[in-house]
Amino acid sequence: MNGTVAESYQGKASIRVARAALTRLMEPSDMAGMALIAVAGPEDALAFIRSGAQSSAVLEQEMTGVLNISGTGRWPGLAEALTRWRPRLGDLAPERDLYVVERLGGGLLIPEDPHWPAALAELQLGEPIALWVRGQVARIPEQNRCIAVVGSRDSTSYGANVAVEMAGSLVQRGFTVVSGGAYGIDAQAHRGALGAAVQGGGRIGPPRAVEASPPTLAVMAGGVDRFYPSGNEDLLRSITEKGAIIAEVPPGTNPTRYRFLQRNRLIAALCEVTVVVEARWRSGALNTAHHADTLSRSVGAVPGSVYSANSAGCHRLLREGAAVCVTDAADVAELAGAAGTNLAAEPEGAPALHDGLGVEDLLLLDALPMRSATTVDKLSVVAGLGVASVLAGLGRLELLGLAQRANSGWKRNGAG
Amino acid sequence: MNGTVAESYQGKASIRVARAALTRLMEPSDMAGMALIAVAGPEDALAFIRSGAQSSAVLEQEMTGVLNISGTGRWPGLAEALTRWRPRLGDLAPERDLYVVERLGGGLLIPEDPHWPAALAELQLGEPIALWVRGQVARIPEQNRCIAVVGSRDSTSYGANVAVEMAGSLVQRGFTVVSGGAYGIDAQAHRGALGAAVQGGGRIGPPRAVEASPPTLAVMAGGVDRFYPSGNEDLLRSITEKGAIIAEVPPGTNPTRYRFLQRNRLIAALCEVTVVVEARWRSGALNTAHHADTLSRSVGAVPGSVYSANSAGCHRLLREGAAVCVTDAADVAELAGAAGTNLAAEPEGAPALHDGLGVEDLLLLDALPMRSATTVDKLSVVAGLGVASVLAGLGRLELLGLAQRANSGWKRNGAG
Repeated sequence: MNGTVAESYQGKASIRVARAALTRLMEPSDMAGMALIAVAGPEDALAFIRSGAQSSAVLEQEMTGVLNISGTGRWPGLAEALTRWRPRLGDLAPERDLYVVERLGGGLLIPEDPHWPAALAELQLGEPIALWVRGQVARIPEQNRCIAVVGSRDSTSYGANVAVEMAGSLVQRGFTVVSGGAYGIDAQAHRGALGAAVQGGGRIGPPRAVEASPPTLAVMAGGVDRFYPSGNEDLLRSITEKGAIIAEVPPGTNPTRYRFLQRNRLIAALCEVTVVVEARWRSGALNTAHHADTLSRSVGAVPGSVYSANSAGCHRLLREGAAVCVTDAADVAELAGAAGTNLAAEPEGAPALHDGLGVEDLLLLDALPMRSATTVDKLSVVAGLGVASVLAGLGRLELLGLAQRANSGWKRNGAG
Repeated sequence: MNGTVAESYQGKASIRVARAALTRLMEPSDMAGMALIAVAGPEDALAFIRSGAQSSAVLEQEMTGVLNISGTGRWPGLAEALTRWRPRLGDLAPERDLYVVERLGGGLLIPEDPHWPAALAELQLGEPIALWVRGQVARIPEQNRCIAVVGSRDSTSYGANVAVEMAGSLVQRGFTVVSGGAYGIDAQAHRGALGAAVQGGGRIGPPRAVEASPPTLAVMAGGVDRFYPSGNEDLLRSITEKGAIIAEVPPGTNPTRYRFLQRNRLIAALCEVTVVVEARWRSGALNTAHHADTLSRSVGAVPGSVYSANSAGCHRLLREGAAVCVTDAADVAELAGAAGTNLAAEPEGAPALHDGLGVEDLLLLDALPMRSATTVDKLSVVAGLGVASVLAGLGRLELLGLAQRANSGWKRNGAG
């Protein structure tokens, strides 16, 4: 923008106040709004909306350029967009909103801040105008330290267990668990993360600096002034004490279906990996996974019983190749490409000694009797190997402690 | 082969008798043996082995050609191979073997038979020399009608349930369930298949012709004269009555570790899809899946609890991308590309009407109050849409039955 159009309008505000105001005028992912902010800057964008001008040919042309570059294609135009934003001008009180959130121990994080999460830029014109943050920590960890753990509201005890354990173990590995603060899997993920933070996360690696990296973040569909849903009030309050709750809509805003869907995109965008613990065939958690996939972030799905409708969505993701199967925090850490991984260890049981044997030695081992020894000639018949092969193979198996000489010939050694 | 080398040897037998004999002299997947049979034919191959000749430059050269083409690379040579085969000449009684299996109601299926399973040719030099078949039906269905259902011996009740239901439902869809006759998942798969056959398979599609396509086949690692393991004797006898049991080793042969692994390759090669129902991190069932993958056949894995060690192998396959997630027979049928599919239906719940709404209509629907009506102006503020957009959107939502006019304005309609 050439700086001549919007500067002439009255009522300019500071960048932070302007962004606070714009979060009330514009719904999340309002592409035209972001285009206006991109070409005019937040202060002039707000001033222009407030000005009462019907439109602006210069602004519209520049916005069209931005929207075209982003592949948005034809848009209804600036005049039409203004009819969306202006009806809310009467509700505008950004200084009050900022005061309310500051009184609650929070603040407004804006892209001009040094700690603005760089990961959100990948949302392009869907990047939030600002983030309302409430909690002890206003600093959101970098994407590669954030893992989304999400799932159904109507979780089973299986899903709840997995969510608690996985979230706790992720925090112990130094990750921040991000979720939506909802009932069910979200709540269990937050609880698991808080529980691990309380324990100090001693088991894996050095003690974590809780100040530097909060155990958990809740991304809300409504304003951060309200703890929603109310049944999670205590949990959400704990999150504000040890972590933070975040929203792109201003205080006093109700969560709506549209805002839940947009909230899901924010969760996905903040995180390196999105893990779906339990989800029905249709579930909001799949929406989060879809956003993560669109952003080329990794998606993990936790398998479960084929008889559980609450795992059907996870199995759907796996079947469609939209998610990787993850069974524990180690799998998730590996998916996050965490430093010091591949942490995912092979469970249960050292490799059997037989695994490395060649075909002939395997045939010979199979042919060796457990108890009474047998002759090389008999071994040749039973194993289907020539005498020379039998002799050479017996030497190798003896060396490995799998065969032993006995009075009359050879037999197996030990439990091999 | 130019026909001059082996024809001079004594003791030639019919092709069937010769192949019967060769199954005793050679272990499964003896590449050199298959190369000899390929260049000399089964009768001359047997005659040559019986002849006592130390080697044959002509045969060895032709065999080297065959082995090179198959990418086998250097091989120890014909003389060395003869030292493998000849020790077993003393045990040779192919006519007796054929008589034994015929007395048991079976016979020897050889590649020269019209019903030899064409799918086995994909094993190249690992193709069986012949198949010893015991049962009512000597005809093995084509690959695209065969599904392998395999898994751990130490199955859980969850895995057993899945195996029974999946196998039964596959039989009702006209498939033949192939497994290994072992304890655990194998046995449950056979039982489920037999149970569905007894019921006549009425539920899906027309009644199936049991004669044309047996419900189940068991592929054994040892001879078909013995029911192994003995605890499955009744089950295996039932399989011979309604289906068949199959082995590439002759009667009287013990199952060995090597033969179990080779048996797994046969199961995979006979089937369009191999489904692993339950498997530990290390399990023979994974070996079968690996064979299927090598043959570019589809592999399915059934998910389960992340706390079940018996599902760890399935999750490993899913995680490594070596298998597709399958939760029921419909998923498996889809994987098999069965005619009349895509049979896998979307479970539970019709799509919510909201799924198809555009962003503006979704915003508007969210803004519509449930009880007392509101004005267009208020809707404009709450939804963040211009008045014109609100009016157009209300028209669409009314048409969909989601919005209704009331005295003073608009409200939501019904449960939408």
